[in-house]
Amino acid sequence: MKVGEQHYRTIWVAEDGRSVEIIDQTELPHRFATLRLTSTADAARAIRTMQVRGAPLIGATAAYGICLALVEDSSDAALEEACAALAATRPTAVNLAWALSEMRAALAGTRRNDRVGVAYEKAAAICEDDVATCRAIGEHGLGLIETAWERRGRSGAVNVLTHCNAGWLATVDWGTALAPVYLAHDRGPPVHVWVDETRPRGQGAALTAWELGCHGVPHTVIADNAGGHLMQRGLVDCCITGSDRTTARGDVCNKIGTYLKALAAHDNRVPFYVALPHSTIDWAADDSFTDIPIEERAPEEVTTITGRTATGAVETVTIAPEGAAASNPAFDVTPARLVSALITERGVCEASAEGLASLYPER
Amino acid sequence: MKVGEQHYRTIWVAEDGRSVEIIDQTELPHRFATLRLTSTADAARAIRTMQVRGAPLIGATAAYGICLALVEDSSDAALEEACAALAATRPTAVNLAWALSEMRAALAGTRRNDRVGVAYEKAAAICEDDVATCRAIGEHGLGLIETAWERRGRSGAVNVLTHCNAGWLATVDWGTALAPVYLAHDRGPPVHVWVDETRPRGQGAALTAWELGCHGVPHTVIADNAGGHLMQRGLVDCCITGSDRTTARGDVCNKIGTYLKALAAHDNRVPFYVALPHSTIDWAADDSFTDIPIEERAPEEVTTITGRTATGAVETVTIAPEGAAASNPAFDVTPARLVSALITERGVCEASAEGLASLYPER
Repeated sequence: MKVGEQHYRTIWVAEDGRSVEIIDQTELPHRFATLRLTSTADAARAIRTMQVRGAPLIGATAAYGICLALVEDSSDAALEEACAALAATRPTAVNLAWALSEMRAALAGTRRNDRVGVAYEKAAAICEDDVATCRAIGEHGLGLIETAWERRGRSGAVNVLTHCNAGWLATVDWGTALAPVYLAHDRGPPVHVWVDETRPRGQGAALTAWELGCHGVPHTVIADNAGGHLMQRGLVDCCITGSDRTTARGDVCNKIGTYLKALAAHDNRVPFYVALPHSTIDWAADDSFTDIPIEERAPEEVTTITGRTATGAVETVTIAPEGAAASNPAFDVTPARLVSALITERGVCEASAEGLASLYPER
Repeated sequence: MKVGEQHYRTIWVAEDGRSVEIIDQTELPHRFATLRLTSTADAARAIRTMQVRGAPLIGATAAYGICLALVEDSSDAALEEACAALAATRPTAVNLAWALSEMRAALAGTRRNDRVGVAYEKAAAICEDDVATCRAIGEHGLGLIETAWERRGRSGAVNVLTHCNAGWLATVDWGTALAPVYLAHDRGPPVHVWVDETRPRGQGAALTAWELGCHGVPHTVIADNAGGHLMQRGLVDCCITGSDRTTARGDVCNKIGTYLKALAAHDNRVPFYVALPHSTIDWAADDSFTDIPIEERAPEEVTTITGRTATGAVETVTIAPEGAAASNPAFDVTPARLVSALITERGVCEASAEGLASLYPER
C-alpha cells in the first residue's frame, strides 16, 4: 500500500538478491524506517522483537529466514537449526509453523546446490500467495460492508471497528481485516474505522491509524475500553478483526481484548467478522483452550509506553508505580459462537467446523 | 489510608480552618503532593482537571467549594453562582449534584452571619458520612469476598478484578469497590487484585496500583484488554467496581470499559459486584441511555500518555500518528442484568428497582 506517493510491501528482497528488507514496525508511527536482514538470527530477532508482526507477515519473514540460513550453509543440519530457531520466536500465530513446513516441503529432496534458489522461489511464492489471498479476502469482505451500507439506508459511512492491526502491515500487502476496508474506500461504500488503541503495545494507535492515514481512510482512535459503549449507542455497523490462529471448529485466537469486543458485538447485535487466510487455520487444534499456547510477554509492555515528546524525541515512560507487578497475556480466544462469520480467501462462511469444511473440503 | 507511615484522607480543612487541602491526584503515582484550595474557582478547577476525581470525592470537594465561596461572600447570589460553577465542572457523577443540594438544604433559612459555620459543618458531615458509608460498604462487601474464598476451597487468595479507581482516593477514605478488599487484607481471607490499567487516563495503573501498594495489598496491573482472558481461564473470583451514577432500576454508569468487564464476567459466571454509596443513586434516572449525560473528554487523553522517564522526569508522549483523530467517551452504562449484586452502606441487594427499594424503602 501507499507510504507517501510510493507503494510498499512489508517485506522484499534487497537489490543484492539475497538480503531481505522490512519496515521496522517498532519505529512507527514516529519514524518510517526500513531495515536489512542478512541472517537467520536477524530474521528471528525481527520476529521476536516485533519489528515485523501480524500472523501472515511472521510467516513470510520466517520463510526468508530459512533462505538466509541456506545462503550461509545449505546443509540439512543448517536447515533444521534455522527452522528450530525461527519456530521458537513466537508461540501463538500458527502461520509461523505453517510457513516453515511449506519451506521444508519445497526443499525436501532438492540437491544442496539448488536449495538456495528453491528457497527464495518458495519464499517469494508464499509472499505472492499472501498478497493474492488478502486481496481475495478484501473482495469477499467488501460484500459484508456493502450489506452494512444497505442496512444503514445508504447514508453516512459504514462504521467498522477493528482491534489491533490486521492491515497491510500485518501481512505482505492489503491486510486481512482491513483489506475490505481499503477496497470499500477505493470503490465505495464510504467507510470510517474505529481504531482500538490495543494496549499494551498499541498496534491500533501506532500501526492501524498510521496505515489508514497513509491511505486516506477516515478513522478515529479510541481507547480499548470505548468500543462497547459505541456499540450500545449504535455507532458501530460491524467489527472486523484478524486471527492469529483459528481452530477447525472456528474458534479464533487473536490479540488480547478481541474476545471483549466480540462479547459487546454479540450483546448489541453488531456483526462480528474475522478475516483470515487459510494459513492461520490450525486444523489440528480441537480445543482452543488447551491446544493453543498463549504467549505471555514482558510485564514492562504494560507498565511502560513509548511515544514521542514535544521535541520529537522518542521516549519510553513508566505509567505505573515503581516496582508494580504486571501480567501481559498477548492473545485471547473468541469462541465461534460469538463470531458472525469468517472471511477467507475462498469466501465467507459460518464460524464452525461445517462452515470451514464447506470452504476447505480437501481437509 | 496509609501513605508511608502516615494516615491520610483525600481532602481536609487546613490549619487556618478555612482553606482546604487535597492530594493532587494528577501527580500520582510519580509524586505525592498536596495542594491548597482557597477559592471556589480552585475547587472547580480541581474537579475539572481531575486533581480530585471519583464520584464521592467530587461531591466532598464540591461541598467545600461552597464553603470557600461563602467565606468570600455569604450572599444568596454568591451561593447560587458557586453552585452553578461547581455543577458545570463534570456531568456524569451524580454525587456532585447531590452534594450541592445537601449544602443548599443545610444553608436554607440560615442567617448570613451563620452561613460560613453551617457550611463547614455540613461539608465535614458529608465527609464523615462518606467515611462511615465506605466503611459499611467494606463490611458488607467482605461477606462476598468470604463467599468467594469458600468457593475456592479456602486455598490461595481471592482474585478480585477492579476497573478504574474506586479506592480511598476516589472517596474521602476507604473507597467503595476497594473497601471490602482493604478489610479482607487486614482481617482475611487473603486477597489479590487484578488492576485494570483503565485507559485513557490510567486511573488503575496510576492510582489503584499506588494505593494498594501503599497499603501492602498484593496486586497485578493488566491491560484493559486482558480481563476477559483471565476470566476465561478461571483466574478471577469476582469483579468489584464503583459507580458514578446508579439508576433506580440498578443500571450502573461507571468508567468507560466497565460494561466490557461485566459482559465477560457474565459469560464466565464470575460474580460482578458494584459498590456504591447512596449518594450515587439517581432516583430520577429511569432510562440509563437517555437520562445520563456521558462526558466526552479531550481527544488528547487518548493520543498521549504521561509517565516518568528513566531520569525521573514526568513527560507526556504522543502515541498516535500526528494529527490522528480520537474520541474519548469517559463512561459507559452496564445494564442491571449484568450486575450480580449492588453493595451499598445498607447491605447487598439485587441490581433492580426491587432490590434498591428493599434497602431504601423511604424512597
